[in-house]
Amino acid sequence: MCESSAYLLSNGQEELVLEDVETLEEEGGTVTLTNIFGERKHLQARVKSLSLVDHKILLEET
Amino acid sequence: MCESSAYLLSNGQEELVLEDVETLEEEGGTVTLTNIFGERKHLQARVKSLSLVDHKILLEET
Repeated sequence: MCESSAYLLSNGQEELVLEDVETLEEEGGTVTLTNIFGERKHLQARVKSLSLVDHKILLEET
Repeated sequence: MCESSAYLLSNGQEELVLEDVETLEEEGGTVTLTNIFGERKHLQARVKSLSLVDHKILLEET
């Protein structure tokens, strides 16, 4: 499976926000993450990087 | 494998930009995509959505 973990870059530190993320949507500066368990997180952020090999989504605060 | 195809949303249409994308990096409004063959694309865009189930990255022009 290809679910990834999402991290938020804040003050130079990467904090784990949500694991097993399946979808991400950005709208008006808000990123919505949804994982395979239906959990959702909303953040004022943008996508800084993705590594599909490492299953990692890095977000940056906006 | 978890590589995805990247599409650019432009004038309401989704255009395929690069297949087999492994990494994405955003810096100063430019998104750099790299695929498993080492091909790179640079776009003035941002990440609009991701679906890791569908192996799809959707970018929007900025």
